[in-house]
Amino acid sequence: MGYRLAAFGEFLLRLHSNGHQRFGQTDGYTAYYAGAEANVCVLLARLGMQVDYISRVPDNDLAAAGLQQLRGHGVGTAHVALGGQKLGLYFSEPGNQLRPIRVIYDRNGSAYAELEPGMLNWNSIFQEHQCFHWSGVAAALSASSAAVCAEAIQTARDKGLLISSDFNYRATLWQYGKKPAEVMPPLLYHSDVAVADLDAVEIYYGITTDASLPLEERFRQTFTTLQRHMPRLKTLAMSFRKTQGAAPVYSGALAHEGGFYFHDGFPVPMVTDAIGTGDAFTAGMLYGLTNGHAPQDIINFATACGLLKQSIPGDWAILSLKDIELLLKQGISGRIAR
Amino acid sequence: MGYRLAAFGEFLLRLHSNGHQRFGQTDGYTAYYAGAEANVCVLLARLGMQVDYISRVPDNDLAAAGLQQLRGHGVGTAHVALGGQKLGLYFSEPGNQLRPIRVIYDRNGSAYAELEPGMLNWNSIFQEHQCFHWSGVAAALSASSAAVCAEAIQTARDKGLLISSDFNYRATLWQYGKKPAEVMPPLLYHSDVAVADLDAVEIYYGITTDASLPLEERFRQTFTTLQRHMPRLKTLAMSFRKTQGAAPVYSGALAHEGGFYFHDGFPVPMVTDAIGTGDAFTAGMLYGLTNGHAPQDIINFATACGLLKQSIPGDWAILSLKDIELLLKQGISGRIAR
Amino acid sequence: MGYRLAAFGEFLLRLHSNGHQRFGQTDGYTAYYAGAEANVCVLLARLGMQVDYISRVPDNDLAAAGLQQLRGHGVGTAHVALGGQKLGLYFSEPGNQLRPIRVIYDRNGSAYAELEPGMLNWNSIFQEHQCFHWSGVAAALSASSAAVCAEAIQTARDKGLLISSDFNYRATLWQYGKKPAEVMPPLLYHSDVAVADLDAVEIYYGITTDASLPLEERFRQTFTTLQRHMPRLKTLAMSFRKTQGAAPVYSGALAHEGGFYFHDGFPVPMVTDAIGTGDAFTAGMLYGLTNGHAPQDIINFATACGLLKQSIPGDWAILSLKDIELLLKQGISGRIAR
Amino acid sequence: MGYRLAAFGEFLLRLHSNGHQRFGQTDGYTAYYAGAEANVCVLLARLGMQVDYISRVPDNDLAAAGLQQLRGHGVGTAHVALGGQKLGLYFSEPGNQLRPIRVIYDRNGSAYAELEPGMLNWNSIFQEHQCFHWSGVAAALSASSAAVCAEAIQTARDKGLLISSDFNYRATLWQYGKKPAEVMPPLLYHSDVAVADLDAVEIYYGITTDASLPLEERFRQTFTTLQRHMPRLKTLAMSFRKTQGAAPVYSGALAHEGGFYFHDGFPVPMVTDAIGTGDAFTAGMLYGLTNGHAPQDIINFATACGLLKQSIPGDWAILSLKDIELLLKQGISGRIAR
Amino acid sequence: MGYRLAAFGEFLLRLHSNGHQRFGQTDGYTAYYAGAEANVCVLLARLGMQVDYISRVPDNDLAAAGLQQLRGHGVGTAHVALGGQKLGLYFSEPGNQLRPIRVIYDRNGSAYAELEPGMLNWNSIFQEHQCFHWSGVAAALSASSAAVCAEAIQTARDKGLLISSDFNYRATLWQYGKKPAEVMPPLLYHSDVAVADLDAVEIYYGITTDASLPLEERFRQTFTTLQRHMPRLKTLAMSFRKTQGAAPVYSGALAHEGGFYFHDGFPVPMVTDAIGTGDAFTAGMLYGLTNGHAPQDIINFATACGLLKQSIPGDWAILSLKDIELLLKQGISGRIAR
Amino acid sequence: MGYRLAAFGEFLLRLHSNGHQRFGQTDGYTAYYAGAEANVCVLLARLGMQVDYISRVPDNDLAAAGLQQLRGHGVGTAHVALGGQKLGLYFSEPGNQLRPIRVIYDRNGSAYAELEPGMLNWNSIFQEHQCFHWSGVAAALSASSAAVCAEAIQTARDKGLLISSDFNYRATLWQYGKKPAEVMPPLLYHSDVAVADLDAVEIYYGITTDASLPLEERFRQTFTTLQRHMPRLKTLAMSFRKTQGAAPVYSGALAHEGGFYFHDGFPVPMVTDAIGTGDAFTAGMLYGLTNGHAPQDIINFATACGLLKQSIPGDWAILSLKDIELLLKQGISGRIAR
Repeated sequence: MGYRLAAFGEFLLRLHSNGHQRFGQTDGYTAYYAGAEANVCVLLARLGMQVDYISRVPDNDLAAAGLQQLRGHGVGTAHVALGGQKLGLYFSEPGNQLRPIRVIYDRNGSAYAELEPGMLNWNSIFQEHQCFHWSGVAAALSASSAAVCAEAIQTARDKGLLISSDFNYRATLWQYGKKPAEVMPPLLYHSDVAVADLDAVEIYYGITTDASLPLEERFRQTFTTLQRHMPRLKTLAMSFRKTQGAAPVYSGALAHEGGFYFHDGFPVPMVTDAIGTGDAFTAGMLYGLTNGHAPQDIINFATACGLLKQSIPGDWAILSLKDIELLLKQGISGRIAR
Repeated sequence: MGYRLAAFGEFLLRLHSNGHQRFGQTDGYTAYYAGAEANVCVLLARLGMQVDYISRVPDNDLAAAGLQQLRGHGVGTAHVALGGQKLGLYFSEPGNQLRPIRVIYDRNGSAYAELEPGMLNWNSIFQEHQCFHWSGVAAALSASSAAVCAEAIQTARDKGLLISSDFNYRATLWQYGKKPAEVMPPLLYHSDVAVADLDAVEIYYGITTDASLPLEERFRQTFTTLQRHMPRLKTLAMSFRKTQGAAPVYSGALAHEGGFYFHDGFPVPMVTDAIGTGDAFTAGMLYGLTNGHAPQDIINFATACGLLKQSIPGDWAILSLKDIELLLKQGISGRIAR
Repeated sequence: MGYRLAAFGEFLLRLHSNGHQRFGQTDGYTAYYAGAEANVCVLLARLGMQVDYISRVPDNDLAAAGLQQLRGHGVGTAHVALGGQKLGLYFSEPGNQLRPIRVIYDRNGSAYAELEPGMLNWNSIFQEHQCFHWSGVAAALSASSAAVCAEAIQTARDKGLLISSDFNYRATLWQYGKKPAEVMPPLLYHSDVAVADLDAVEIYYGITTDASLPLEERFRQTFTTLQRHMPRLKTLAMSFRKTQGAAPVYSGALAHEGGFYFHDGFPVPMVTDAIGTGDAFTAGMLYGLTNGHAPQDIINFATACGLLKQSIPGDWAILSLKDIELLLKQGISGRIAR
Repeated sequence: MGYRLAAFGEFLLRLHSNGHQRFGQTDGYTAYYAGAEANVCVLLARLGMQVDYISRVPDNDLAAAGLQQLRGHGVGTAHVALGGQKLGLYFSEPGNQLRPIRVIYDRNGSAYAELEPGMLNWNSIFQEHQCFHWSGVAAALSASSAAVCAEAIQTARDKGLLISSDFNYRATLWQYGKKPAEVMPPLLYHSDVAVADLDAVEIYYGITTDASLPLEERFRQTFTTLQRHMPRLKTLAMSFRKTQGAAPVYSGALAHEGGFYFHDGFPVPMVTDAIGTGDAFTAGMLYGLTNGHAPQDIINFATACGLLKQSIPGDWAILSLKDIELLLKQGISGRIAR
Repeated sequence: MGYRLAAFGEFLLRLHSNGHQRFGQTDGYTAYYAGAEANVCVLLARLGMQVDYISRVPDNDLAAAGLQQLRGHGVGTAHVALGGQKLGLYFSEPGNQLRPIRVIYDRNGSAYAELEPGMLNWNSIFQEHQCFHWSGVAAALSASSAAVCAEAIQTARDKGLLISSDFNYRATLWQYGKKPAEVMPPLLYHSDVAVADLDAVEIYYGITTDASLPLEERFRQTFTTLQRHMPRLKTLAMSFRKTQGAAPVYSGALAHEGGFYFHDGFPVPMVTDAIGTGDAFTAGMLYGLTNGHAPQDIINFATACGLLKQSIPGDWAILSLKDIELLLKQGISGRIAR
Repeated sequence: MGYRLAAFGEFLLRLHSNGHQRFGQTDGYTAYYAGAEANVCVLLARLGMQVDYISRVPDNDLAAAGLQQLRGHGVGTAHVALGGQKLGLYFSEPGNQLRPIRVIYDRNGSAYAELEPGMLNWNSIFQEHQCFHWSGVAAALSASSAAVCAEAIQTARDKGLLISSDFNYRATLWQYGKKPAEVMPPLLYHSDVAVADLDAVEIYYGITTDASLPLEERFRQTFTTLQRHMPRLKTLAMSFRKTQGAAPVYSGALAHEGGFYFHDGFPVPMVTDAIGTGDAFTAGMLYGLTNGHAPQDIINFATACGLLKQSIPGDWAILSLKDIELLLKQGISGRIAR
C-alpha cells in the first residue's frame, strides 16, 4: 500500500479571461480552481496516490464547486474546514509568446488568510499520512496563516512524516508586514524534500550563485549551501526554463541522497497555459520519490509532468500515467494518438 | 442646458455564470460591471443627461476596464479615486421562472469599503452639479464609507443640490456592526426625492402598512408617514412586482408635489436579467423629473425603464429614448422592428 | 413526379447579435443566411420539393458559404449569377417578449440591387419549372431589380407557370424613389397564388377593412376586394399573430377556389426567433397546394410551419415532414421525443 | 447514521446540441453525463445520503471523465466495473414550448448492454447498503443485462435490502426481442417502493384506468391494482405534467402505508431542460422516505425536486437542500436571492 | 468534361473537445463530419471535380446533417444507402506541439460496419464514373464491409475504372479477427494509383527499407518492391512529416510512370488540426492526376493541399484552388490577404 | 500640457470569423471596431494623449456601439458627423502561420465614402489641436472623400498643425477611377511626419530601391528620394517583417532630423492578430515624437508597440505604457507577470 500525503495551502478560484482577450477587452472569464498545493494534490491523485487536501474555505457554492472538482480527481476533502466569508481569487489574462500572462490577486481576507492557530486540529488530521506537503505561498498571506503552517510542520515532524516544501516565492504577496527571509527559514528548517528556484533561494536565504556558471553547477552549489540551513534536506528538485534560440527549453535537476541528476530538457515551441507548471513538476517528483523510483527516472518523470502541464488549460495537470510515459518514450511529436 | 448629476456608490464587477449553469456546474462567468449608482448613471447618460460617477477603485486593469465601459456610455469618471487593493465583486447564477437568481457578494475590504472621511473632496467634486444621487448600499459596507455618504450628503445640502436617495436595502450586507435603522434615517433625512420599497421602509423606519390593502393605498400611507421622517421629501417613487395568475406584472407608483400617480403595470412573461431593474426605474424617474415632465409621464417612463431592463443581460439598461418611447406607444408586442 | 419551383429574390447574410446582447453591448454576431425567397426554398427543399433559387451574389467567400448551405438543404443554386461587389446584409439584435427584435439593413448597392434587365436569361432558366415564387422585398431595393422582377413574372406567365407572390412589405426598404403602390400592383397582377397581410394590402392597394370586425371576416372581405385587382388570384393565404391574454396566438386563413378555411391558432408562449415565420408559412402553403392537399389541410400545415419556425434560430425553418405532422397530431406539449 | 443506497443502471454520455440549434444546424454538443439511476444517485448524494453507483463502462477517458463528475457530487464509484468498448451515448436537440426535445440513442453494444450474469459480484457489492434502486431502462437494453438486473434484485432481496424500482419505460429501447410485459413483471415483483407512470403501468401489466377520471382517482385505482402484482409494494409515487391553460402544471401523488397524499402542483411557465425530471422526483421521494419524513412532506419534497430539475441544464439535479426548502416555503417567485 | 470519381468508405461524426480542453475537463464537443474517403471527396468537389460518395448511414438526423454538409461542398450523396442504427463516431481531444491529439473510436456496429455484400448495387452505382477511390479503413471495420470493398473494387475493375487506393492503416481498428496482411493485399491488388506510408507498407506486405537511408531512397525502393504485389500500380504518392530542429517539415514524394518526383517540404511551425492531412494530400494528388498535370506539379500541389489542411479545423480541407496556388506561389508568409 | 491630435479616416466594423474557422465553415463573427486612423487614436489615448477622431458614420446602433468603445478608450468623438446609411465593414478569416488572414471589404457607399467637401467644418474642428494624422486609405474610397482629405490637410497646414501621414496602400480599394499615383502625392506633399513601406512608396511615387541591398540601406535611400517629393518631411518611420529561418522578425527604422535609427527587431514566434500592427507602430512613433523622446527611444518604442499589437485580438492595441516598457526592458520571455 502506497504513501498517503496531506497537503496544506490556500484554495483559489482562478478567473481567466476568455479566448485571447486582455482585461481591457474581455467579455468574461473561464473558471478554474487552483492553489499551489491543490495543484500538486490533483496530479498525485490522478496518478493513483492517496492524497488529502487541507485548507479553509467559506461555506458557499463557489467553494463547494471547487471541492467537488477536487473530489472528482480523487483528492480527499474531508479535512477542508468551512468558515470565513471569502474564497481566495485570482484573475489572469492570457499571454502568448510575445506578451506575458498577467495575474491580479484578490486573496486578502480570504477564509484561508484568516486561519488562526488552533483552528485546525493537526493531530487528528495526520492519522494515516506518511508525507506532508506545503509551499511558500501558504505562508505568504497573513501572519496567522503562517503560524498555522508552523503548527502543521511541527506536528508533521513530531509524528515522523516526510516533509516536502516548495519554496514558491510570489513577490506581490507577502504584504502582512513580515519579510519572507524572516518567516520562511524556520518553516523550511524541517524539510526532508524541497523544490526551489534560484530566485526564491536568494530571497529566503540570501544565497546566490555566479550567474555565468552553467545551471547544473549553480544547482549543485545551491543544494550544498542550502543543506547548511536545512539540516534534514536529502532531496532537492529544481526546474528551469531556458530561452535559447527560437523555442525555450524546459529542463530539470535533482539532488538526491548524494547524487545529482539532470534532464536535458524538452523544447517548448508553444504554451497553452504556463500556470501550474511548477506544481506539476513537484507532483511528478513526489510521485517518483514515494514510489521508490531511481533518481534519474524521478527527474525525468518530474520534468515530463512540468512540460505536459504547459499543454493543458487551467492550473491542474489533467494527466494520466500513460500520457507521461508516452512523452518519455516518444518525445514531442506531431503524431495523432489514434 | 440640462441638469448635471453626480452619483456616489461602490463600483462592482459582476461575474455571472455562463448560459443557464448553476455555480455547481459552471465553466465560467460573463463579466458585467455594476453598482446601484453606476447603473443609474449609465441609463441617465445614455438618455443624454450629464452625469458623473464618484467612487473609489483600485489602480488595476479590472477596475480600469469597468471605468472604460462607463465612459463609453457617456458617464464622467474623472472623480473616481484610485486606491486600495480590491474591486468589489459579486457572483451570480442565472435563475429562471422556477428558481431565483442567486448572488454571492465579495465586497469586504474593497477600495470603496475602505473609503474614509476626507479622502474625497466633495467641495471640489460638486462644482457643476444640480443633483446628487446615492443609495442604501453605499452605506451598507463599512462604517467609514457610510461616513463618507454623510459627508457627501451634507456637502450636497450645503451647496443646494437636489438630493435623490434610493432606500435599496440588501439584507446580506450590513455586517459592520451597525443596524440599518441606526445608519439610514440620518442619511435619508435630507432627501428631496426618494425611491423605496415597502420592506426597506419597514427595516429603516419600522413603518408598516396593512398588507391586505391595495398596493396603491399602502403606497399613499407610506409616503404620508415617511414625510414625517424626511421633512424635505417631495417625490417618492416605488415599483412593484405582483405575481398574479400566469405571468407577473411590473407596475409603478409616484407621489409628487401632493399628487399620487400610478402605472397599472406591464405583464412580464419572461425575464432575461432581473438585476438592475430598480436602478433603471430610478434613472427613468430622475430623467422625467429633471426634464420637467408631467407626473403621470414620469411614472410611466420610469416603469417602462424598469420593465425594459429585464430584457437586457447585465446590470445596465442599454436603452435609448426611442426604445422606451416605442414601449410606451406600442406596449409589449411580438413585432419585429425592421 | 412533383412540381419544380423557381424562386427569385435577394440573398442575404444575417448577422445576429450573440446570446441576448443588444447592439450596444454585443461581442459578435451569429451568421445566418437569409432572404425571403431563399427561406421559402429551404423549407420546400427539406420537404422534398425540387426548387431552384435565382439571385445574384458577388463572387466571394461570403456568398459562396451561403450558397453552400442552400445546396446542403437541397436547393438548386445553378442559376445564381455571380457578379457585383457586395452581398446584401442585415444585422439583428435579439428581442424577447418585452422588447422587439431590431433589424438594421445594409443592402444598398448589393449584387442583387444592381441587377438590371437582361442580366438573367429567364427563358433559359425556366425550363423544368411549373411554379415561380417571388415576394415584395424583391422589388423594394432598386428600380432595376424591380424591372427584373417584371421580366421574370412576364416570362413565367408566358411559359404558363403558376405564379406565387408574397406581398411582404418592409417599410424601411423602398428608398429608390418609387412608392410601393406604384410598383407592386402591376407586378402582383399575374399572381395565381398570394400570401399577404392586412397592412401590405393597404399600402399596395389602399384596401382597408373595418378593424372592429373579426379577422376571419376581414380576411374574407380582403380577398374579395383583392380579386378585382388580381384577376387570376385563386388562392390567398394570411397568417395572424393575435396577442390575447398571457400568450399570443398564431393562426392562419386560406381562401382557395371559392372556399374559406381557417386554423384557430396555436398559443405561442415563447419565441426563439420570429424572423422567417411568414416565409415558413408560405412554404407550407405552397407545399400543400402543389401536393394537392385538401384546403383545410393546407392551411393547417402552413400554420404549423409558421409556428414551428418560431422555435428555430435563424431564418430557415429547419424542419422535416415528421416534425410538422407531429405538431398537427399532438399540438404543443412539453413531451420529450425519445 | 443514515441509509446507504446502491443503484444500478447504464451510465451515459449525453451530447446536447448547443444553444437552441437543431441537429440539422448545430455546430457542436454540450456534454452531460447521465443515466436514470446515476441521476438519482447524484441528487441523493448532494442531499447528503451515502450512495454507490454500480454499472459497467469502458476503460477510456470518456467514461473516466463521467465517473470523475459522479465522485465530485459525492457518489461512490468503487463498484463501477471497467470493460467492454463503448460508453452508452445519446444525442439530444433542445426543444422549447413549441417543439419537443428530440433524443437519438446510441446505446447498442455498450459496456453495460454487454454485461452478463456473473460479471458483477452482488454479494460483495451489497455489504453496507440498506436500499437498492434500479429502473426499467436498466432491463431494456439486452437480455443479458436484464438478467443482471434479476441477479441484483434477488441478491438484494436475500440480503433484506429495501428495493426501489422506477418503471421508467422507453419505447424506442427494448429492441432485443423480448417485450417489456415479459421482462418487467418478474423484476418488479420484489419491489418495496416504486415510481411509475400510467403509460408504463399499462405497457408492463396491461392495467388501465378510465381516462375521464381525475388523476388522483386513477392513481388510487392503479396502486390498488398494482399491489396484486407486486405483493411487497408499500409505497408508490407518480408525477404528472398537466397542460391546462397557458402554462403546464407539474404535480405529484404518493401512496404510502395505506394513505394517499397529493401535491397540487406548481405552474411551469418555462423549462430549461426537462430531461431528468422523473429521476429528481424519485430521488426526492427516496430522500424523504429514508429520512422518515411524514408522507405529505415526502410528496411535497419529491414534487419540488422534480420541478426544480426543470430549471437546470443537464440530466442532474444540481440542487441543495436549501434550494428545495426555499421553493417549498416561497413557491415560484421572481425574487433575487441576494 | 472532367473525370467523375466515386469514393466508398465509412461516414463519421467527429466530436472534438472544445477549445484546448482534454477529455477529463471538457464541457462539450465541436461537431465535424469525417471519414477518410469523404474527406477526399470534399476537397475534390471544392476544386470542381464531379464526385459521388458511397456509404451507408442510419436514417436519422445526425447522419442527415452530415450528408447535408457534403452536398453543400458539392459532393453527390445520391448513392448513400440509408439503414442500420448507428452512425460511426469518433471523439478527439486537441493536442498541441507538446502533446498528441488523442482519438477514441466508437464505430462498432455502425450502419457501415454492418454492410453486407449485395446491399449496394455497384453496377448501377458506377454509371458515369471514371475513377474509384477507397482506403484501408474501409476494410478495417468488419469482415462484411471488407467484402463489400472487394465487390466494389471488382466491379470497378470490370468496368474499367481507374482504381485509387489509400493504404491508410489504423492500428486500433482491425478487431474483427482478421489481420490486415490477410485482407489488404487482395484488395490492393487492382490499384492503378496508391497513397501509402512506410508503416502501412510494412504491416500489409512486410516490406521494409533501411531506416538509415534518406526518405527519398526508401520511397524509391518501396515503390519498386510494391509493384511486385500490385501489378497495375503506375502511381504511388507518399507524404512525410520530418521533425528536424525547431519546426517539423511536411514533404511529399511521387512515383509516376517511371519517374520519381519530390517536394522538399514546407516548415510547419503550427498546426491547427492535423487530422485529414493525408486525405487532403490524396485529393490533391488525384486532382493533379485526373487533370493531366505534370508529375512535379502533381506532387507540389498534393503537398500544398496536405500542408494547408493543417491550418483548418475539422477533417475537411476547406480550400479553393486560389488558396493552394497562392501557397505554391508565395510560400508560407505572415502577409494579410487584403 | 501635451499635444492634442486629430485624426481623420473611415470608421469600420470588422467581422472576424470565430475561432479558427474559415469563411466556408464559420458559424459567426466576432465584432471589432477598426479603421487605420481610429486604431492610431486608441493607442495614443490609452497612452494618455488627448486625441479626437473625425469621421462620418450613420446614425444607427452599429456605429454608436463603436463610438462608445472609442470613448471608453479615451478618444474624443465629438467631431464624428452622423449621416449616410451605411457603416464601412470588413470581414476577415483567421490565418495562421501556414495560411494568410483573408479580408473581404464592404465599404462602398459608406457614410465616410459619401463625405463631400464642405460637410465637415475643419476650421471649427481644429481649435485645440497641434497635430493632424491621416492615412492613405482615407483617400482610397471615393473621389469626394479624397477631396475632404485635401480640405483637412490644407486647413491643418494653414493653422500650423504638424501633419502626420501614413502611406497605407491597400490594393483592393482605389476603385473610384483614379490611380493612387495621381491622388496621393499632392495630399502627402504637406507632411511633416510620415510612415511608409517600400511597396507604397513605389506605387505612389514610382520610387524603387535595389532589393538586394540591406533594408537599412533601402530605407536611407528611400527617405532621401522621398524628401524631394515631400519638402517638409523631417521624420519617416518604417517597420519590417523579415522571414528569416524559423520565426519571422519584426523590426523598425526611423529617419529623424538628419539621423537614421534602427531597432534590430523582435522574433515573432506566434501571431494572435496581425491586423493593426502598422497602426500601433505609427501610434508608438507619434507618442515618442510628441513627447520629445530621443530618436533611438522613439523607434524602439514604436517597434515594441507594433510587436505587442500582434499578441492582441482585434484592430486596437489594448496596451498600457507599462506593457510596452516591460517588453523594452525584458524582451520576449515566457514569464508570468504575477
